[in-house]
Amino acid sequence: MDVQGQREDNKMTQEGLFKVPNPHISALKEDFLYHITIGNKTHDLKDMFHDVKFVCFGGSQSRMRKFAEYMVEALNHKLPAGQGLVDIAHESDRYVLYKVGPVLSVSHGMGIPSLSIIFHEVLKLLFHAECSDVTFFRLGTSGGLGLEPGSVVITEEALDGLLQPYLEVPVMGEIKRHPSKLSKELAEELVSIAPKGFQTLIGKTMCTDDFYEGQARLDGAFCDHTEGEKMEFLRRMHQQGIRNIEMESLCFAAYSYRAGIKSAVVCVTLLDRLKGDQISTPHDVMAVWEKRPQQLIATYIRNKLGIEK
Amino acid sequence: MDVQGQREDNKMTQEGLFKVPNPHISALKEDFLYHITIGNKTHDLKDMFHDVKFVCFGGSQSRMRKFAEYMVEALNHKLPAGQGLVDIAHESDRYVLYKVGPVLSVSHGMGIPSLSIIFHEVLKLLFHAECSDVTFFRLGTSGGLGLEPGSVVITEEALDGLLQPYLEVPVMGEIKRHPSKLSKELAEELVSIAPKGFQTLIGKTMCTDDFYEGQARLDGAFCDHTEGEKMEFLRRMHQQGIRNIEMESLCFAAYSYRAGIKSAVVCVTLLDRLKGDQISTPHDVMAVWEKRPQQLIATYIRNKLGIEK
Repeated sequence: MDVQGQREDNKMTQEGLFKVPNPHISALKEDFLYHITIGNKTHDLKDMFHDVKFVCFGGSQSRMRKFAEYMVEALNHKLPAGQGLVDIAHESDRYVLYKVGPVLSVSHGMGIPSLSIIFHEVLKLLFHAECSDVTFFRLGTSGGLGLEPGSVVITEEALDGLLQPYLEVPVMGEIKRHPSKLSKELAEELVSIAPKGFQTLIGKTMCTDDFYEGQARLDGAFCDHTEGEKMEFLRRMHQQGIRNIEMESLCFAAYSYRAGIKSAVVCVTLLDRLKGDQISTPHDVMAVWEKRPQQLIATYIRNKLGIEK
Repeated sequence: MDVQGQREDNKMTQEGLFKVPNPHISALKEDFLYHITIGNKTHDLKDMFHDVKFVCFGGSQSRMRKFAEYMVEALNHKLPAGQGLVDIAHESDRYVLYKVGPVLSVSHGMGIPSLSIIFHEVLKLLFHAECSDVTFFRLGTSGGLGLEPGSVVITEEALDGLLQPYLEVPVMGEIKRHPSKLSKELAEELVSIAPKGFQTLIGKTMCTDDFYEGQARLDGAFCDHTEGEKMEFLRRMHQQGIRNIEMESLCFAAYSYRAGIKSAVVCVTLLDRLKGDQISTPHDVMAVWEKRPQQLIATYIRNKLGIEK
């Protein structure tokens, strides 16, 4: 097992210009981003994306469409008569990609491998477009630990299913480890602008590759553990400062850090796992909760752009 | 690290009735399959799904919609005037689920975690519906090794990114290992009915959690290896009998085996990785290739149901 050293070097140059940490990319005759069906020879990526400053990722395609629509409103973004948002990646059904001024709204599907593909391709997109000073957000849903459902958790540190703070990637027969660090400053800034009426807090996040057994649930198709063992593990997690569980933060944090990009993971909790496994909240209540990370990120972006509500 | 013993017991009873290997499920007051938005209290699952004999999984939602439409034709399935196929999971945008007589067509997204969620929920669906003698197929796309692009590989054995023949699932702080065995008999039966005109073969499949570095590509956003190291690894894989690379077969094989369900992984290859990394085949050629696994499975199902073409 090869333990890769931490990368403390920031991939931004002095001017903040983003560069991918892969020397082979510049040497490619053509770079076609297969899963979002755009490329640096078929499209003028600099013209299309040079002004991007915020990339917002989320699992669900429809939720990221709605987030883009919401950003049109939140940023007072004027769409000329007869024009509407279109999914830039519409030739593929793998992901959606919307652009509203300096904001990209991108879906990542479920789980680390699905997030990993779009993360590679978005980084290459930003590189080809010569973007600078870009911030990444993941806006998601999660299971909570000891929190009122509907609370919002901003990830302090992402841990894997064995509670280790790094992503392990098998590369050509060897495990490479990448620390899953996130920006403390950005997390604190987000908490400071959070609305009242529900809890927004900083906590650790466990990121798993399995929704059922991997999250100690008893209600999957497979289960070899008891209620007692489940509760003991969940309580141990809670004692270690873990406040929510989801399936992408580890890779999101590790690859942001590796690329030298400031990032935050903002997830609403849909249930308290100390009280159950199944998600039974009515649809309309959940719809309100799911908007909370979006509203927080919209406020942050508005502040940064100096847009008055 | 806890190495879980192989499960040689078949989860089918003598009558072939499928049971989930989780005693907690029968004790649940309600089992709502969250990611496909159907449940055993809100829906009469036995009435809806009792006749299911074949479950066909594939990554893309639109491809699995097209497969369902293709099955209507292939099985001479009569839809009454004014009726068409509907996505049974339409209240969620996570997965699609179509039913054509005894065939389910289900999308699984990209990567093992995404497949894992729908696999748990489909198994529970079959259990609640009291289905019997069900066969599973994964119909996919892949990168080939030393094969003419467009060839079809039926997986003999699925290997992880370290070339190990089992799935590792962290459960409550411990790694559980599940062997990724597939039905040899079913693979051979599929090869025996494959059409002429292109190659259909049985080979090992490497299943990774990352599309770029994990598959030794040089064209991801991150890359710490050279062309020479890549080629050496790909050649080593080829020498070990690996004929294609994708991102779901390991979990599909391991969970089918664990559930006692006969299954096969049938993937077309879109490029020869010994010759490059990027997928540059024209869209219309790829569309023809993508149908090959569908056509093979349709032939198999027609034969089993005694339907003349």
